[in-house]
Amino acid sequence: MPTILGQNQYGKAENRLVKVVRDGDTHHIKDLSVSVALSGDLDEVHYSGSNAHVLPTDTAKNTVYAFAKEHGIASAEAFGLLLARHFVESTEPIQRARIRVEEYAWERIAPGAGEHAHSFVRTGRETRLAQITYDGEGFEVLSGLKDLTVMNTTASEFWGYIKDRYTTLREDYDRILATSVTSWWRHSWDGGAAQPETEPETGRETEPEPDWDACYARTREHLLRAFADTYSLSLQQTLYQMGSRVLESRAELDEIRFSMPNKHHFQQDLSFCGIENQAKDGAVYHAADRPYGLIEATVLRDGARARIPVDLTNL
Amino acid sequence: MPTILGQNQYGKAENRLVKVVRDGDTHHIKDLSVSVALSGDLDEVHYSGSNAHVLPTDTAKNTVYAFAKEHGIASAEAFGLLLARHFVESTEPIQRARIRVEEYAWERIAPGAGEHAHSFVRTGRETRLAQITYDGEGFEVLSGLKDLTVMNTTASEFWGYIKDRYTTLREDYDRILATSVTSWWRHSWDGGAAQPETEPETGRETEPEPDWDACYARTREHLLRAFADTYSLSLQQTLYQMGSRVLESRAELDEIRFSMPNKHHFQQDLSFCGIENQAKDGAVYHAADRPYGLIEATVLRDGARARIPVDLTNL
Amino acid sequence: MPTILGQNQYGKAENRLVKVVRDGDTHHIKDLSVSVALSGDLDEVHYSGSNAHVLPTDTAKNTVYAFAKEHGIASAEAFGLLLARHFVESTEPIQRARIRVEEYAWERIAPGAGEHAHSFVRTGRETRLAQITYDGEGFEVLSGLKDLTVMNTTASEFWGYIKDRYTTLREDYDRILATSVTSWWRHSWDGGAAQPETEPETGRETEPEPDWDACYARTREHLLRAFADTYSLSLQQTLYQMGSRVLESRAELDEIRFSMPNKHHFQQDLSFCGIENQAKDGAVYHAADRPYGLIEATVLRDGARARIPVDLTNL
Amino acid sequence: MPTILGQNQYGKAENRLVKVVRDGDTHHIKDLSVSVALSGDLDEVHYSGSNAHVLPTDTAKNTVYAFAKEHGIASAEAFGLLLARHFVESTEPIQRARIRVEEYAWERIAPGAGEHAHSFVRTGRETRLAQITYDGEGFEVLSGLKDLTVMNTTASEFWGYIKDRYTTLREDYDRILATSVTSWWRHSWDGGAAQPETEPETGRETEPEPDWDACYARTREHLLRAFADTYSLSLQQTLYQMGSRVLESRAELDEIRFSMPNKHHFQQDLSFCGIENQAKDGAVYHAADRPYGLIEATVLRDGARARIPVDLTNL
Repeated sequence: MPTILGQNQYGKAENRLVKVVRDGDTHHIKDLSVSVALSGDLDEVHYSGSNAHVLPTDTAKNTVYAFAKEHGIASAEAFGLLLARHFVESTEPIQRARIRVEEYAWERIAPGAGEHAHSFVRTGRETRLAQITYDGEGFEVLSGLKDLTVMNTTASEFWGYIKDRYTTLREDYDRILATSVTSWWRHSWDGGAAQPETEPETGRETEPEPDWDACYARTREHLLRAFADTYSLSLQQTLYQMGSRVLESRAELDEIRFSMPNKHHFQQDLSFCGIENQAKDGAVYHAADRPYGLIEATVLRDGARARIPVDLTNL
Repeated sequence: MPTILGQNQYGKAENRLVKVVRDGDTHHIKDLSVSVALSGDLDEVHYSGSNAHVLPTDTAKNTVYAFAKEHGIASAEAFGLLLARHFVESTEPIQRARIRVEEYAWERIAPGAGEHAHSFVRTGRETRLAQITYDGEGFEVLSGLKDLTVMNTTASEFWGYIKDRYTTLREDYDRILATSVTSWWRHSWDGGAAQPETEPETGRETEPEPDWDACYARTREHLLRAFADTYSLSLQQTLYQMGSRVLESRAELDEIRFSMPNKHHFQQDLSFCGIENQAKDGAVYHAADRPYGLIEATVLRDGARARIPVDLTNL
Repeated sequence: MPTILGQNQYGKAENRLVKVVRDGDTHHIKDLSVSVALSGDLDEVHYSGSNAHVLPTDTAKNTVYAFAKEHGIASAEAFGLLLARHFVESTEPIQRARIRVEEYAWERIAPGAGEHAHSFVRTGRETRLAQITYDGEGFEVLSGLKDLTVMNTTASEFWGYIKDRYTTLREDYDRILATSVTSWWRHSWDGGAAQPETEPETGRETEPEPDWDACYARTREHLLRAFADTYSLSLQQTLYQMGSRVLESRAELDEIRFSMPNKHHFQQDLSFCGIENQAKDGAVYHAADRPYGLIEATVLRDGARARIPVDLTNL
Repeated sequence: MPTILGQNQYGKAENRLVKVVRDGDTHHIKDLSVSVALSGDLDEVHYSGSNAHVLPTDTAKNTVYAFAKEHGIASAEAFGLLLARHFVESTEPIQRARIRVEEYAWERIAPGAGEHAHSFVRTGRETRLAQITYDGEGFEVLSGLKDLTVMNTTASEFWGYIKDRYTTLREDYDRILATSVTSWWRHSWDGGAAQPETEPETGRETEPEPDWDACYARTREHLLRAFADTYSLSLQQTLYQMGSRVLESRAELDEIRFSMPNKHHFQQDLSFCGIENQAKDGAVYHAADRPYGLIEATVLRDGARARIPVDLTNL
């Protein structure tokens, strides 16, 4: 046979799931999109079409809903851990499961005195992300976010760059810096896989799960504050400050990767009609769509191994 | 000539504009998309291609940016009023101008003690809308919003409907009610056009502009609270409650129109694996994309004439 | 009661439907999105939540699928006529039904000698549109299309326009003209409603349905050819030529409306690096996203009444 | 320093470029989106904000347009090769350049007798993709496509799969198989990097560039025909057939990867109203949006090393 099968996986993507928890009259909700990808001993389904080793993607979908009801959704990460382990441990040919979760944020209508117990409005803020991979030995847990759109209206410069035949850009000492952050960060926690010899009896129990929700909230806060606090000479510098702030503040994280478009805001030239439009006086900007700068980088704890894929956006 | 020209208009759409106002070290921003549509004595450009009566759309774009710098942006509506009047009064063949504005909301990073003076994060909440039309006589001002996504996890029923040969739906006494509200409301204010005879000297000055921002904030709040407060027997009933609450509370508004998709959340049947999934215990739902119910209606102050277009979404 | 209900309608939107017809081994497909909007005696569902007059939108969905199987889909328009009449005639409180259809085009894989009898590839060309309205008396049939994207790389000029304080645009004697056509056209056919007195016995039968598919194919062809044939001094002139060509060629149509964005292609200035970039030599252009010119107009057969809504895009 | 910089790259994404070539009165067009990503000696811009090694993304944009005019666009791949080499060879700190190209297809209006020499309509068919990477030693060239949407209305079965507690799916012996293909394939051609020692004098010239356009056209054709020809027992089987057909037919390719959503078409159950809806008679299907199956795999020439990233869609 002149051709062979390489890496492969399959599953059900974008299971849209809302779970309501009733605590007396007070309701709580989780609003998720859950994607399952499975791999293992699956050569034959590719070579001959035999489905003997295939758990249908329809079953994966049913499992997601059933697990949400049976086990609840403590957090995006905790739910992913349950699902990933289930698929590998319950289905013999499946040797690896990857669960990706998107979570959409809602808040109560009229918080405060008139707060409603079962009425919600979607906030529209960034989408929370989680990816859990299990291979029968240990877990890899990534958390992240996308569409966190931020802007500094000053405290950003760009100058001192290479000029060549094709350079027309003018140096700028007071520009808008805006981006829409996509970021993934990796937890060192692996469910205990790393130390099987040293504590053979207790196994995974020696490493309790981190508080995923608290970690997310703090990381988000660090990202925002680092973006705001950095007097920026380049978007790369801001990115690195955001990454290092997160790793320095969250000991449980080893690595963080960013994909940050430079959402250009061009100062409109109004001199044609005699109007000065200077940043120092408060200016008018054209918010451009395309093309856009795109800055991507990983920040690592010294000694850690980079494991987050380099391509966070479409190939 | 067997064919003639009917209604026509032209202009520049989606001018993406960010305006920074500096108040010492504290910055304020407006983030808008502004669309201009002009009509008037424009037959010849259609019949012969003569542009003698055409103000180029590129000039409309320049005007939007120049006005933002020269006059500032007090609010979406106030900015639209300035632009609409300008195009009609400054360009002889233009007899009518319609300005549409979308406004995107931002909030400061780290509000409270650590609040940043020039750093912002986009909230992602609903998009604010405004449409100002001026015909040389008076103004018509519509305000509105889109993508205000809300959910009640209980207090919603649906039963007692017509059954025919094609009906399979089961009656439901405890369902999720969710929608994404698009709404436009019309202000009675017209800049004084209505009473030119009674107060000839003072003209428009007799009718100061309403406080557009306050009106928007209150209307949004009424919409949310009415959605939350209504024990719903149908989405139509909820819609009507939302509209009448707004008109009863805001004397300056005469009419409000809604386009509200019923974002179906189907209770997942898990009986196949022996799991009960009852609303009363907190259930798991499948959030469906398509098809969706679509409920559209106008609510009017008694005696008012309906003027908001019926079609808020694409024809 | 200080507020009253105005125009209202409800239904199920975007029922995604694929119908296969087997003609021996040769299969044919229709791929549609069907949206139903119903109105009538529906005050009570808004005022009190009584659903006694409500045919559920879920039933509307079921009806669409059942009709596709029972009656087939001769064309988008013919299918819409069947559905619109059904809802009005079978459900007492429903007095008006509007059916909108989007149709997606597919072609056979490997046409010619190796043509496959049941294998298709989506063409991705424009989306065909139809809207049928029935009020118990007569029909109104609109047909149309969207996303028909066309470009002339020459034979387009723009000059002789108004200049004011805000004008910077240079006159251009050789520019790219590109647009993405959205258009609706109205058939004079109304199912016989217009002449009930003159031919009371025969009624609708006196007016057989037009050949909707042929009309669509020819109208599309006229639009393309008129766009290509017109030496353009403005996009408005091109639009009018397209409309009048259609009405002059298709006697069964009375009116056509267009919404045509001017998809700007800006000649890139490369003089900074000593490169000439002239249209006459074949130039490089930047295809811009936003803002864009937007040209909208109706062309009417002389004497016809305009009935297509002015707003083809979102309010 | 407790944190360090990992993999990083930056550039200008989605430069939207249209190039016209005039051949007498006959015009030809290329319509591309070009994205540039550069890496190299860029630590300092991250650590300190020094831009001394940074070629601005604005310059990258200018270069794309200038190269299109100076060198023309023989094909997506050939254009990418020129750009990739330029950035690495002309800018000392840049050691690696990756150029991604999307190409949109147009055809002449009214082909045949009435063919227009400078008028085009966008076909809307799949988007062609190319990615060229250069590291100063050799090239890696990937070609591909996305949004190639195909459907078999029969000759597809799915049965014999694993059943567990969560399985409800019924086996199906005659189903619709539809997918939207995203695929990348890798050329063995590397510009001569592989044999520098054996032919030191001639270098890259010993390996002329393949005919990229012909390769694309044939590969697309093989994908379509393999999809159509395969009697499918699973989408995985169809995928493998598509991949092996391509590799067996195109000796210049070593590897191909697919991401293929299973676009579910569910046979509508109409038994509730007494209508049979059987595949064998031509059935009505509901085309579902989400969730969807997602099948991803690589097919390799035996002995080749897999180098195409596993994740073709967003992480």
